[in-house]
Amino acid sequence: MPLARRTEVVIIGGGFGGLYAALSLKRAAVNLTLIDRRNIHLFQPLLYQVATSGLSPANISSPLRAILRKQANVRVLLAEAVDIDADNRKVVLSDGELHYDYLVVAAGSENNFFGRPEWEALAPGLKSIEDATEMRRRILLAFEAAERQPDPEERERLLTFAIIGGGATGVELAGALSEMAHRSLARDFRAIRPDTAKIYLVEGGSRVLATYPEKLSTRAKKDLERLHVTVLTEHLVTNITANGVELKSKDNETRRILCRTILWAAGVKTSPLAGVVARISLQTPEKDGRVAVQKDLRLPGQDNIFVIGDMASFMTDTGEPLPAMAPVAMQQGRYVATRILDLIEGRQSKPFRYHNRGAMATIGRAAAVADLHYVYLTGPLAWLVWLFVHLLYLVQFENRVLVLVQWAWHYFTFNEASRLIVGKDVLPLLKKRG
Amino acid sequence: MPLARRTEVVIIGGGFGGLYAALSLKRAAVNLTLIDRRNIHLFQPLLYQVATSGLSPANISSPLRAILRKQANVRVLLAEAVDIDADNRKVVLSDGELHYDYLVVAAGSENNFFGRPEWEALAPGLKSIEDATEMRRRILLAFEAAERQPDPEERERLLTFAIIGGGATGVELAGALSEMAHRSLARDFRAIRPDTAKIYLVEGGSRVLATYPEKLSTRAKKDLERLHVTVLTEHLVTNITANGVELKSKDNETRRILCRTILWAAGVKTSPLAGVVARISLQTPEKDGRVAVQKDLRLPGQDNIFVIGDMASFMTDTGEPLPAMAPVAMQQGRYVATRILDLIEGRQSKPFRYHNRGAMATIGRAAAVADLHYVYLTGPLAWLVWLFVHLLYLVQFENRVLVLVQWAWHYFTFNEASRLIVGKDVLPLLKKRG
Repeated sequence: MPLARRTEVVIIGGGFGGLYAALSLKRAAVNLTLIDRRNIHLFQPLLYQVATSGLSPANISSPLRAILRKQANVRVLLAEAVDIDADNRKVVLSDGELHYDYLVVAAGSENNFFGRPEWEALAPGLKSIEDATEMRRRILLAFEAAERQPDPEERERLLTFAIIGGGATGVELAGALSEMAHRSLARDFRAIRPDTAKIYLVEGGSRVLATYPEKLSTRAKKDLERLHVTVLTEHLVTNITANGVELKSKDNETRRILCRTILWAAGVKTSPLAGVVARISLQTPEKDGRVAVQKDLRLPGQDNIFVIGDMASFMTDTGEPLPAMAPVAMQQGRYVATRILDLIEGRQSKPFRYHNRGAMATIGRAAAVADLHYVYLTGPLAWLVWLFVHLLYLVQFENRVLVLVQWAWHYFTFNEASRLIVGKDVLPLLKKRG
Repeated sequence: MPLARRTEVVIIGGGFGGLYAALSLKRAAVNLTLIDRRNIHLFQPLLYQVATSGLSPANISSPLRAILRKQANVRVLLAEAVDIDADNRKVVLSDGELHYDYLVVAAGSENNFFGRPEWEALAPGLKSIEDATEMRRRILLAFEAAERQPDPEERERLLTFAIIGGGATGVELAGALSEMAHRSLARDFRAIRPDTAKIYLVEGGSRVLATYPEKLSTRAKKDLERLHVTVLTEHLVTNITANGVELKSKDNETRRILCRTILWAAGVKTSPLAGVVARISLQTPEKDGRVAVQKDLRLPGQDNIFVIGDMASFMTDTGEPLPAMAPVAMQQGRYVATRILDLIEGRQSKPFRYHNRGAMATIGRAAAVADLHYVYLTGPLAWLVWLFVHLLYLVQFENRVLVLVQWAWHYFTFNEASRLIVGKDVLPLLKKRG
């Protein structure tokens, strides 16, 4: 074996894209460095269950080091990439730098408030563990404050919830929140009836789950209405205040939802590193920050930088970009691993192709919609498929067992136990809101 | 049945004392109000396992509302008691007031820094969920920063941990931290060897577990040393800085431990409400804030105010006050329930008597010491008894199952998975410390 310097591969981000790239390079004779600002891989598809007290943060988090423990060619570093020096092949960290031969940028996305960053404090999004525990805190405190509120008007505001955005996250949040109000919290209060809570799901477009087949959107809306969720499609949010949400309908009619809890699920934009990537590729990023990539996921004009996952805008043969979804990121991670090995060995590669195995979303207990590409599923069957697939992709075996135990428990007892309000300033918040 | 107004019983605090008082009044014809600043009952004896990544916060937390759901005579309020108006029988809340006929004050204790509140930021204690996740964060970040630290001296500081206080909490923390370093983290890093971490347990007195029989203290010390913990007895902390701990031995020799992570387990003092209670009883509280109570746990001079748990100083017949321990609080909670019913009915009651069923502490894997009053246990047998008793007293069945699954998992895999660093400012902290 020659004693040549090993190829240095640096991966930025330990989400689905970055992690699957690292795992797929398991047997490669390269030096791999995976950097992330967090020490965990977060299974984001179940984040909404943390927000609604169904699961604990640790159940959907796996320490990156633990996942990659046995993979000798990788080191994990807790670090933040702030810039890329493409000329000198260096990632600039907030506290140092790293040389690379090949760079995989998979830094993901964050909540998008569409130019209204001041809305974030009033309507938290759902991208991180902290986002989820903040949502959980607001939901639980709203019920607590309502229990102590003598004024019926204010009590009603406290028991009204608006979820902005009718994509998968919004639909799943709305369903789970309704089940909290109607089942797990139903008998826990004395002065209020949680099942009188009003839950609004606000969507600007003409239907929920816009990327799904129309039949499934219709079914999802029906399932949500069965759970007492008011679905407002074709309503745009014009303002968010401490007193609620202001909306404008397609016909230019205005409407206000008076409420104290607003949850944001209206969309994401790329992490700031996408701006750096766009700059070194001399391109203008898309509105949501995504950067165009070539057929092999390399950045145009850069032979050894790949961009994958939520940050990448990959144009399919049909002329539509791939959605920002976990399965896309996972497949791109795997592809990039083989592509890097091909480049090292001077081999040709086929261009990246996304194998669409479908999409699915739950709508509460024993209800879901699943577009399996060749067949549509709804109701309990879709829900079972959803359970199975999500358990399968959870990274650690222990988490699978713990999640399964809790799902079984909730299913049979209607009781969601992770109803934990954390944070030192619980009472001031209650006072402010009560 | 007469239509007389029901007796109003107010309980301040949902810890072991307050919760068991409420549960024991299950069948009583009284109106019960349980107030707490948090929405959960926290099983504090397992808090150290959250701090060392073994369990999730929700596993040792039970929503007070869920526990008391079926008990129709009780309402739970999220509220903070700031004062007591004994003349008018009112609890003054931060945002209102509550009338009582009988009041049970069970507001517990908080970390005691013995007149050095500035030490708290440098050496967090372990009384709340937030304390535990802060400890976990600091422990995990120390290893992360060490992995990236090129300077060997600084790396050694990062891999040195000082635990202040050799009571049960300190002993259990030291044992669990050692197992993290030697087992669950052992193979997770590339640049450092976590099993070279130095762990110091600092105790001012002559032995660890001072309230236990001497034989068990000796055994605990031996077990800790087997786990590579350096036990420094008869060493007083004279100062804590960002660079470590300064100590003074019995012989007035000074010593410094250079380290970046200091964990405080040196003692507790009562919550601020104890000052209010002392004032209305016209007594001077003890050094740690505890307030003397009568033989039936009533406050001297107050016929309808009880003080129980960590806030109460109850003098036994042997002239020693009862320790601030969960079993004492639980038994006092149960006693107070029957005493209130006796007072309502005009019946005589026997004075409170503590039935000491012993005490136990774990020291890592398959090792514990248990003083069961008539028999001392050590090693794996004590550990099994410890497991059984702690599972038994965990309040909700779901939590018992989840804790058991995780303990079994950790036992067989040596892998503690709840290694989650939470909080938005992960990186700045790393930079500051690295």
